[in-house]
Amino acid sequence: MDHFAYRPESQPKADRAALYCEQLPAEEIARLVGTPCYVYSKATLVEHFRRLTDAFAPLKPLVCYSVKSCGNLSICRLLGELGAGMDVVSGGELFRAIAAGVPARLCVYAGVGKTDVEIEQAIDAGLGLFNVESEAEFENIARIAKRKNAITHTALRVNPDVDPRTHRYTSTGKKESKFGVDIERAKAFFRLYGRDPHCRLTGIHLHIGSPVYTTQPYVESVVKAMALVDELAAEGFTVETLDLGGGFGADYETDQSPTLSTYAEAIVPLLKDRVAKGLQIILEPGRTLVANAGILLTRVQYMKTSGEKTFVICDAGMNDLLRPSLYQAFHFIWPCVTDIRFSPQRRQKEMSLEGLRSMDVVGPICESGDFFAIDRPLPPVARGDLMAIYTAGAYGMAMASRYNAHPLPAEVLVDGSTLSIIRRRESYEDLVSHERIPVPVVTG
Amino acid sequence: MDHFAYRPESQPKADRAALYCEQLPAEEIARLVGTPCYVYSKATLVEHFRRLTDAFAPLKPLVCYSVKSCGNLSICRLLGELGAGMDVVSGGELFRAIAAGVPARLCVYAGVGKTDVEIEQAIDAGLGLFNVESEAEFENIARIAKRKNAITHTALRVNPDVDPRTHRYTSTGKKESKFGVDIERAKAFFRLYGRDPHCRLTGIHLHIGSPVYTTQPYVESVVKAMALVDELAAEGFTVETLDLGGGFGADYETDQSPTLSTYAEAIVPLLKDRVAKGLQIILEPGRTLVANAGILLTRVQYMKTSGEKTFVICDAGMNDLLRPSLYQAFHFIWPCVTDIRFSPQRRQKEMSLEGLRSMDVVGPICESGDFFAIDRPLPPVARGDLMAIYTAGAYGMAMASRYNAHPLPAEVLVDGSTLSIIRRRESYEDLVSHERIPVPVVTG
Repeated sequence: MDHFAYRPESQPKADRAALYCEQLPAEEIARLVGTPCYVYSKATLVEHFRRLTDAFAPLKPLVCYSVKSCGNLSICRLLGELGAGMDVVSGGELFRAIAAGVPARLCVYAGVGKTDVEIEQAIDAGLGLFNVESEAEFENIARIAKRKNAITHTALRVNPDVDPRTHRYTSTGKKESKFGVDIERAKAFFRLYGRDPHCRLTGIHLHIGSPVYTTQPYVESVVKAMALVDELAAEGFTVETLDLGGGFGADYETDQSPTLSTYAEAIVPLLKDRVAKGLQIILEPGRTLVANAGILLTRVQYMKTSGEKTFVICDAGMNDLLRPSLYQAFHFIWPCVTDIRFSPQRRQKEMSLEGLRSMDVVGPICESGDFFAIDRPLPPVARGDLMAIYTAGAYGMAMASRYNAHPLPAEVLVDGSTLSIIRRRESYEDLVSHERIPVPVVTG
Repeated sequence: MDHFAYRPESQPKADRAALYCEQLPAEEIARLVGTPCYVYSKATLVEHFRRLTDAFAPLKPLVCYSVKSCGNLSICRLLGELGAGMDVVSGGELFRAIAAGVPARLCVYAGVGKTDVEIEQAIDAGLGLFNVESEAEFENIARIAKRKNAITHTALRVNPDVDPRTHRYTSTGKKESKFGVDIERAKAFFRLYGRDPHCRLTGIHLHIGSPVYTTQPYVESVVKAMALVDELAAEGFTVETLDLGGGFGADYETDQSPTLSTYAEAIVPLLKDRVAKGLQIILEPGRTLVANAGILLTRVQYMKTSGEKTFVICDAGMNDLLRPSLYQAFHFIWPCVTDIRFSPQRRQKEMSLEGLRSMDVVGPICESGDFFAIDRPLPPVARGDLMAIYTAGAYGMAMASRYNAHPLPAEVLVDGSTLSIIRRRESYEDLVSHERIPVPVVTG
């Protein structure tokens, strides 16, 4: 579900259809803000968030938005105003959460490489929960908490060793992973650290990867986790919090992902009674909230044929959206204004429309890895056309770089017919603003 | 060749060896600047540049440094002072070149997606040469030049259809590529556009990929290109400039790459007579100059074992250096201070030293794709150790992002015992400095 849809244009162009984000034509946004540009739909975000909280309402979860999926302050703030906490994975993300107005006590902090400075700042800010990835990290947090004479709360990240069937780069819950510890080791972990007075070990954290397109891995994970919780209880350790992590899918293709209700229907029955007895549930959705709430707009600079290939050369590149290049990820791509018979009813790899032609959609970056789509059936496209790259809200701007000295793109938020620039486009001056002519620091 | 070497420490630690960049210990640099941090050696850069210009001296080439490999202003400025022009692939890179003090007339501008604004700015700045990638682009440049009543020079990028045997993402000179045109089409191109009065088509540009570890692809390319030049001459088109592109290798492993002399010995004889008759040669080295002139310093945050695996968790990640994740690229990695018996004499995948143990070197980013090395034999490593990731000068900082809200790292230039911060580390405030609380732009 999202609020990006084609509408017939008015006379005399009634044979054309144009993409709208809520009430605004994509072409109008591009004219105002330029390209490349990330466009987010507020209504989509709000609706996704509501569907999630409705579906999981029986578990009364704290929903911690995964800042790493799209960290823009306005996105965080919007979700914060709807009641979300934040899932952060660095000091920079905690800074973002707080700057967006979300109290640190509603933040959970995961990640395998937390530095001493990051830990100190998080404790000082009053962080809700550290998700701890290793013995060494627990000892370090405990040492720092003790030195500060502070009390902090931690959940142990446990690898349930289930296969999420996602890209190997984004599968994180298998046994031999840099993340978390396996279940056997979790028991030893609680025995060793479960009674630390400064660093209170009161939770279990699960995160198996992203995106996970079936409910079964969650069911398996929860069943394993609850068995662990019971074994720990028998040893006198009370698990107060179960953080289920994130990983719910998004519709890169129409109806590709289970709905949030479907995930909930599988998970809620396993945990409802536990919640009634006081277990606090945390969810860490990112992609499932924001992926379909964002598109990347890019203008076609040149059309080119080479051998059998037709290239659509855009002004956005792998610097703006790395997923196709890094993960061979599929993103639906379509011109924003098109003949009405090409108005897409569904977004799919194989579109059942007459008159499409196979093209490569590529960027301006000087490497062959700079592509958005290879051999993709598309309606007619010409220089100057505006293209929408869909489902780009998550891990789009978050992974953007300035490769080839391309300034970072703008981000805008659409609310009905209101457009807000929530991150201005960078200038050339911004590219070099932290560089300096050499000034000797040490002379020997 | 580079100026990163291990030296025995002084008494009482004479059983230890420490990495130096020129006259400065890596550990001292890290203490002053923090980690992660890119460290460049000026002497290495200067020596690489001199070796290149010496080797190719018979061709009197214009050496245009490939800004995309490492665009820091101080690096560009240093090479500019040594006589280099710049190879740029965007308006941002042309901005960098000019800001570094390199005249636009010594710049060549390649890339498949040049926008109208970029073309106009380049013409206004007095760009030396456009490397043109398609008919549509030529027509666009010609249109803009005519409108400005300007004269600009162009070289046609020709794909010689040779196999550079490099990563498929960085192989660019094959027939079905978004780059350039094939040789048959090049003749038609000259017939169509070779007499344009505003957009003078006077050059041929070759670029087959990077890194290219044998000389044979260059020989094949040059032979094909010179045959084309002769055919064009027979039709009355004088090719004044041959841009050989870049792609020369770097020593990711010791002695992996042919020397610059070896490349030159293969190429120079093919072109010497042509140069004597007035052909201007352009070279576009990037990686071969700067890759071995830079290392990435990172501090070990945690050691962790999981199943059979030992993880070295660093404070640098795929956000700082993407090549291992994106290209499965090998970078030699070694602790900066180590027992003297582990002082590495060569940098290799398989090190012939007793007492090494297999480890995964990973970063703090929340995905399994965040690694620098998998199953890498290393000497003992402990929390707090400083690690050097070698041959990181090219496509290191150039591809860095703020993924997981990690501020961009610092860059420093070492000259003997003088350390200069040439790009300061970003702050958390920098991460959000272009973001704003929504202000309506359009209200409908």
